[in-house]
Amino acid sequence: MSYLRNTWYAVAHSHEVTETPMRRVILDEAIVFYRVGSGAPAALFDRCPHRFAPLSKGKLIGDELQCIYHGLQFDRWGACVLNPHGNKAIPQAARVRSYPLEERYGYVWLWAGEAERADPTLIPKIDFLDDPKFTSIQGYLAVDANYQLVVDNLLDLSHVEYLHPMFTRKEGVDSHKTEFFSEGDAVFANRLKPNSSVTALARMSWADAPEKGDGRANMRWTPPSVLTFDLGVTGVGAPIEEGLCTPAVHLLTPETSLTTHYFWSQARNMKLDDRDLTERLRIALNRVFVEEDKPIVEAQQQEMGNETDIMALHPVLLNPDIPATRARRILARLIEEESAAAARTTSLAS
Amino acid sequence: MSYLRNTWYAVAHSHEVTETPMRRVILDEAIVFYRVGSGAPAALFDRCPHRFAPLSKGKLIGDELQCIYHGLQFDRWGACVLNPHGNKAIPQAARVRSYPLEERYGYVWLWAGEAERADPTLIPKIDFLDDPKFTSIQGYLAVDANYQLVVDNLLDLSHVEYLHPMFTRKEGVDSHKTEFFSEGDAVFANRLKPNSSVTALARMSWADAPEKGDGRANMRWTPPSVLTFDLGVTGVGAPIEEGLCTPAVHLLTPETSLTTHYFWSQARNMKLDDRDLTERLRIALNRVFVEEDKPIVEAQQQEMGNETDIMALHPVLLNPDIPATRARRILARLIEEESAAAARTTSLAS
Amino acid sequence: MSYLRNTWYAVAHSHEVTETPMRRVILDEAIVFYRVGSGAPAALFDRCPHRFAPLSKGKLIGDELQCIYHGLQFDRWGACVLNPHGNKAIPQAARVRSYPLEERYGYVWLWAGEAERADPTLIPKIDFLDDPKFTSIQGYLAVDANYQLVVDNLLDLSHVEYLHPMFTRKEGVDSHKTEFFSEGDAVFANRLKPNSSVTALARMSWADAPEKGDGRANMRWTPPSVLTFDLGVTGVGAPIEEGLCTPAVHLLTPETSLTTHYFWSQARNMKLDDRDLTERLRIALNRVFVEEDKPIVEAQQQEMGNETDIMALHPVLLNPDIPATRARRILARLIEEESAAAARTTSLAS
Repeated sequence: MSYLRNTWYAVAHSHEVTETPMRRVILDEAIVFYRVGSGAPAALFDRCPHRFAPLSKGKLIGDELQCIYHGLQFDRWGACVLNPHGNKAIPQAARVRSYPLEERYGYVWLWAGEAERADPTLIPKIDFLDDPKFTSIQGYLAVDANYQLVVDNLLDLSHVEYLHPMFTRKEGVDSHKTEFFSEGDAVFANRLKPNSSVTALARMSWADAPEKGDGRANMRWTPPSVLTFDLGVTGVGAPIEEGLCTPAVHLLTPETSLTTHYFWSQARNMKLDDRDLTERLRIALNRVFVEEDKPIVEAQQQEMGNETDIMALHPVLLNPDIPATRARRILARLIEEESAAAARTTSLAS
Repeated sequence: MSYLRNTWYAVAHSHEVTETPMRRVILDEAIVFYRVGSGAPAALFDRCPHRFAPLSKGKLIGDELQCIYHGLQFDRWGACVLNPHGNKAIPQAARVRSYPLEERYGYVWLWAGEAERADPTLIPKIDFLDDPKFTSIQGYLAVDANYQLVVDNLLDLSHVEYLHPMFTRKEGVDSHKTEFFSEGDAVFANRLKPNSSVTALARMSWADAPEKGDGRANMRWTPPSVLTFDLGVTGVGAPIEEGLCTPAVHLLTPETSLTTHYFWSQARNMKLDDRDLTERLRIALNRVFVEEDKPIVEAQQQEMGNETDIMALHPVLLNPDIPATRARRILARLIEEESAAAARTTSLAS
Repeated sequence: MSYLRNTWYAVAHSHEVTETPMRRVILDEAIVFYRVGSGAPAALFDRCPHRFAPLSKGKLIGDELQCIYHGLQFDRWGACVLNPHGNKAIPQAARVRSYPLEERYGYVWLWAGEAERADPTLIPKIDFLDDPKFTSIQGYLAVDANYQLVVDNLLDLSHVEYLHPMFTRKEGVDSHKTEFFSEGDAVFANRLKPNSSVTALARMSWADAPEKGDGRANMRWTPPSVLTFDLGVTGVGAPIEEGLCTPAVHLLTPETSLTTHYFWSQARNMKLDDRDLTERLRIALNRVFVEEDKPIVEAQQQEMGNETDIMALHPVLLNPDIPATRARRILARLIEEESAAAARTTSLAS
């Protein structure tokens, strides 16, 4: 399957990457993640070029990753730096691919394309994760479905009324005002609920919320599969800052064409130090994602078999599919541009 | 795989189809079964045409089946009757296939072919299930094998002496008189045992059976895979009605080409109100089918891999294979005639 | 996949083959093993030619194997000798392949090629299993990997220092002197450790071993996948017979192209009657093979997917790969010669 490659993907929570090597499949490639003495994270293709043992079964000797099978050692750039055998010469082919990594917002980000183009300024902005006015919770789901089905799920929140009873407002789906638009390669799907009842979930963080408020649930997609979610409610006619803000981010990273790493963070600007509330929210949100979203998205994929593109199966399209359809089109164009550019480079080089 | 389509298949016990939608795969198609307010059973293709969520995860709103994902509602004929989104227009493509159903003898029957040809008079006759002179027990097996292997098993009861010690008579396989013949598309495999010992199983229902009797085990196959079994024993030379009659029916419905829904009923004309006997018979029969027939048929399929037609693998044929071989030939001809007719229709229409 | 066929493979421990038929897959073929009244082991293709029921589900009637499904009986040479049905004629095609077997050293050996060429003198010599000066332990592993990966593992013991901490000497991998050579179709990979520390494992059997000794770990491969291992340590400069000898044999038999039957025996020439030691050694060796070798070899295979030949994936080759590379080349040549000879035979016959 084709993926957008010259972009950053969230691949791990920072705390997952330690001195103990960890294997994780990203974009169909098995990668070993670990952390060297300086604290920098490292990522290598997880296969020793000698006998194909996974390097993740080995251990760090200083900053070098030692293969458990025959002891070859690799530095963090993938070069073999020690062959303990025979005349100890290191064959030229004894190297593995290394991947540019950055660490930000508590996530490790991997650049899946040409290393020389890895630009940290292209990491998506998730300001609330750096902002002391917010506290946040994190979660992870392994989803057995193509990542674009998860994007569809998030870009069409009209499903909330049917799939997530806990999140619905009394007024029902009809009372939302929706706005769909694009800005450059970003796609927006906004749902506005002026002067409507405040959800039970919102009241968990905002105990003295008014009975009615101006609600918003504004989703923004940027390529390849980053969704930032401006969710909140404030008093009717009141400024946003006076109300509850619970911004979220959903980071979807293909593990394979049929499975997805789903990282999410959700913040709040109230009761920052209420640990009990934090725990209750983590449980509530996790339950919704694991028990409601994940099964339906996986059921979609099962209906699709090994097909990864739902559009190839001619689904009936409705009004709320507009944003996801746009996002798919943008992503397809970017992938095509990337492979066209790669073809040009190859052609010039030859 | 090709199936006979313009025919009725047993797909569920009546009590399985309720207001709670149930998914079941029939002839490679996922189908949702449910019951509307009038009590009528309904069956739709179990995939919402919008995002491919299984409709069986949804619920009934009145008589309409609501998709759990985005709330589209479908009537029992498969037409979308509510789109809660956007301008609420219902796209023309928003419909799913519905399947003609009939309910008889405690089974729900599905017509797998052209709806306009669904004729309830073609449902197989199973008179003993409607006859107050009999009481009966029902069972179900999920068999991981092509349905024709189960037909073979039932049309060649010479296996009973080897696979089912409980059913055998002292005299052994040699003492049976067998008759194989056809009438139209029906195939008969009769086994007669005049003046022979009565089995332990028969004695459970007929306590004061004579030591010897005239036994019969007459199997009748009709397409596609309906087996009615006239099993009984009576006094030597006595009329059938004076003895024990335990007629049975075996209804085999392909789930996929490699898996089978196996519904069975077995009746008796004695001790009709003996519930304890009913329970003991259910356990005894179920054990035989589950522990003896099912493993051997599944082992056959495993030896055959993904091949569905054992004849393609050139088995050695013996005398008792004659009825099953005839049945396979008849079914193959009917399937071929059906697809030839379909081709003609298509050709006329173009 | 192509295997060397005109050769003996170890297929079972003698005690595994009894009057109760046992199914085991060897070189992609399901085979039923059993023992007739004379005590001789027998092996037939495990599929009744009638309806493909596994003969291993049947039972012995005297020396004949009776199919559980319809009662056909087969003698140990695979001929159907009883058809209980119809006119009882035995169809000419009613026979299954039988396999030449020999029993030696506590193993049952199967000749996988042309029966008329089965020559018991070609069974590998494993003298220590017949020698009263030794006692030995046996083990078995089911390995989910192509058998040649296990051969590679055994022909390159440089992995010991990295994968098996329990077996390593203080001096490390560098202090070994290695000798790689061939004699005819046998490949040798010897590791010599003159005047070096004695391992903890060796001390289990040789309590009053000197602190330093002359160690040896000499592996010998013969086709197709028989590895005899001359492992031992003696006093510095002392004759081998005065020290500890723990010869071993590793017999690798393909189950399928991706799975392997791994039989091993390891003997010792000291403390022959110490049953507690025997048990502790069995546990220690088994743990090393099961917890250290098996996972890494299976991980290699997983990295290779369904590819069975690691050379096709262009691994980096190091000095200690020389013996395994030679062995692979010899085996490939023998398989090619065998299929060329078979083609000639076919050609002459036509």
